[in-house]
Amino acid sequence: MASSTPQVITCKAAVAWAAGAPLVLEDVEVSPPQPFEIRIKVLSTSLCRSDLSAWESHAIFPRIFGHEASGVVESVGLGVTEFKEGDHVLTVFIGECMSCKPCKSGKTNICQVLGLERKGLMHSDQKTRFSIKGKPVYHYCGVSSFSEYTVVHSGCVVKVSPHVPLDKICLLSCGVSAGLGAAWNVADVTKGSTVVIFGLGTVGLSVAQGAKLRGASRIIGVDNNTRKCENAKSFGVTEVVDPNSYNEPIVQVIKRITDGGADFCFECVGDTDMITTALQSCCDGWGLTVTLGVPKVKPEMSAHYGLFLTGRTLKGSLFGGWKPKTDLPSLVEKYVNKEIEIDDYITHNLAFDDINKAFNLMKQGNCLRCVIHMPE
Amino acid sequence: MASSTPQVITCKAAVAWAAGAPLVLEDVEVSPPQPFEIRIKVLSTSLCRSDLSAWESHAIFPRIFGHEASGVVESVGLGVTEFKEGDHVLTVFIGECMSCKPCKSGKTNICQVLGLERKGLMHSDQKTRFSIKGKPVYHYCGVSSFSEYTVVHSGCVVKVSPHVPLDKICLLSCGVSAGLGAAWNVADVTKGSTVVIFGLGTVGLSVAQGAKLRGASRIIGVDNNTRKCENAKSFGVTEVVDPNSYNEPIVQVIKRITDGGADFCFECVGDTDMITTALQSCCDGWGLTVTLGVPKVKPEMSAHYGLFLTGRTLKGSLFGGWKPKTDLPSLVEKYVNKEIEIDDYITHNLAFDDINKAFNLMKQGNCLRCVIHMPE
Repeated sequence: MASSTPQVITCKAAVAWAAGAPLVLEDVEVSPPQPFEIRIKVLSTSLCRSDLSAWESHAIFPRIFGHEASGVVESVGLGVTEFKEGDHVLTVFIGECMSCKPCKSGKTNICQVLGLERKGLMHSDQKTRFSIKGKPVYHYCGVSSFSEYTVVHSGCVVKVSPHVPLDKICLLSCGVSAGLGAAWNVADVTKGSTVVIFGLGTVGLSVAQGAKLRGASRIIGVDNNTRKCENAKSFGVTEVVDPNSYNEPIVQVIKRITDGGADFCFECVGDTDMITTALQSCCDGWGLTVTLGVPKVKPEMSAHYGLFLTGRTLKGSLFGGWKPKTDLPSLVEKYVNKEIEIDDYITHNLAFDDINKAFNLMKQGNCLRCVIHMPE
Repeated sequence: MASSTPQVITCKAAVAWAAGAPLVLEDVEVSPPQPFEIRIKVLSTSLCRSDLSAWESHAIFPRIFGHEASGVVESVGLGVTEFKEGDHVLTVFIGECMSCKPCKSGKTNICQVLGLERKGLMHSDQKTRFSIKGKPVYHYCGVSSFSEYTVVHSGCVVKVSPHVPLDKICLLSCGVSAGLGAAWNVADVTKGSTVVIFGLGTVGLSVAQGAKLRGASRIIGVDNNTRKCENAKSFGVTEVVDPNSYNEPIVQVIKRITDGGADFCFECVGDTDMITTALQSCCDGWGLTVTLGVPKVKPEMSAHYGLFLTGRTLKGSLFGGWKPKTDLPSLVEKYVNKEIEIDDYITHNLAFDDINKAFNLMKQGNCLRCVIHMPE
């Protein structure tokens, strides 16, 4: 069946014109998908801390943020055989080309072709698919879901069953998957272990869920936001430590209450000093620190060499080690089978018009995930 | 059979009186072994880079250095059942108490009881077993083998067969084991992998031997000492890179010749900047850097968080992850069965009187291991 040639679509998108300035709902032109790309009608998109960080600090403007999203395929570019109009999909900020050395290795989810560095452009031709009156509007994370329609490389899209609620599983696009995967794939948290999580946002609480499902005995959450601390226990956190409640350094607190240090520490704040704190909070011998956060300032972490020599390991986790196409379907299935929890991370449901409210809630630390419901 | 009560022994020891000052062969009094200690007649002891570093920089003097050693048990303290007079033994700078949580965990060789921090004293009573005219002379690494007799905690001693040449296997006390274990136990080097070793001393070349025995395809050695580079190939190094021969940064060289970075990097220099270089020289996705060196200056390492986020891991290796009592006998057996090479690391054999010559050779980078033969 021959489908009609896709045309430019003009639709509403939340455009960021400058760092930290409120988004403006603008009419944008969305180009047809180019080869190996698909155009998606976005239905649900949640706000992740990385969107906020990039909005506050990055230099690429005007730009359309948003990368946790679900929707329906509107049209496909040349060469796309995996998707067709009407398919339900999730977007992912890293891709899986299935053919580069890393993708074929089976050892990593860091695709060489569809990696992170895009500078606001589509990887195939280094151009944008968005424009306002012909002037380019830049992409974010290759997804840009704060738009009624967006164009994404087919390698960054995962097909899901039409029976799964898109307004829930959009959280698997990034935050919840990142946390679960860090606990399961990257750290391989063991039964009976002691886990410390620095930062109790959606990612940190998803690490908690992952650690709980692995049978960790103690899951200690560290955050100085008391509201986050209150909610943490329902996600598996067994003890909460608010650094503001102590007169001693947090490392000392953790070492004392864990009898020398934790088996696993997770840095979910995005602060390189916190990476050091996490390493110091691990035990000698086998203490493992996993860093998931993307620091907004001071990109260099530092640590005393002795922390490593006495048996500690530091590793990073990007999207929890999940390969989008290979692994996400199994996570969706776990949600359907009620083996993992997603709904409880959604603290707010907002209309697209209220997108700036989501940014404010996140900025003030007053939410976990705000799901933005796009016009049907 | 009741043995006679051990008495103080007066013997020759090479005493370091001040940082960097030539050692002086002095008459020292060696106390009888206290409970759970043994007194050893040292027969062979080799000089390790750590002895030199401590001699050049540490503040504890007067002191008797030396920690790679073999000898014969002269007497045992109360409670020692594992050893008896005449047993052939190896000393190890870390102990294995067999009863602390880490020892019983099976997951690490970092014993909580007989760890590294001794400050020149015996761990049981925080006193020395050496004195000159009644004034204390401090220990080093709990071994102090540059003495005709020394007292060591029984947890830091390993019994070996009397048929094994002590003047060879003393190298298993530290350097050769540290390198082999880093490749086998800590990094778990895989067949066909690309390995980069920074620093081609005995430890680095033992990593090379370990990597070769694991079937690594490329073993790239990095050192700016051309003499070390020349010898490296006989230990398994397949290519040598002398940073002085390039006008570009060494990271760039490694990334270029390895098509993006190595699978495994080993820092065997003892330089925290080199840890960063090693991390940068690893590939995205699964690159692992193992640090073995003990830095003499600048104990803080630093690295861009992105190195971890894109899939790199940093871990430390102390004595190659070997548990002395549990694991060293198997390494001795491998030597006897000619499955591992030790002899080729011995570039010099010296009499005890010539111990300062060993220090000078090491200082000038003109040796791998100098074995010092103690008076029979």
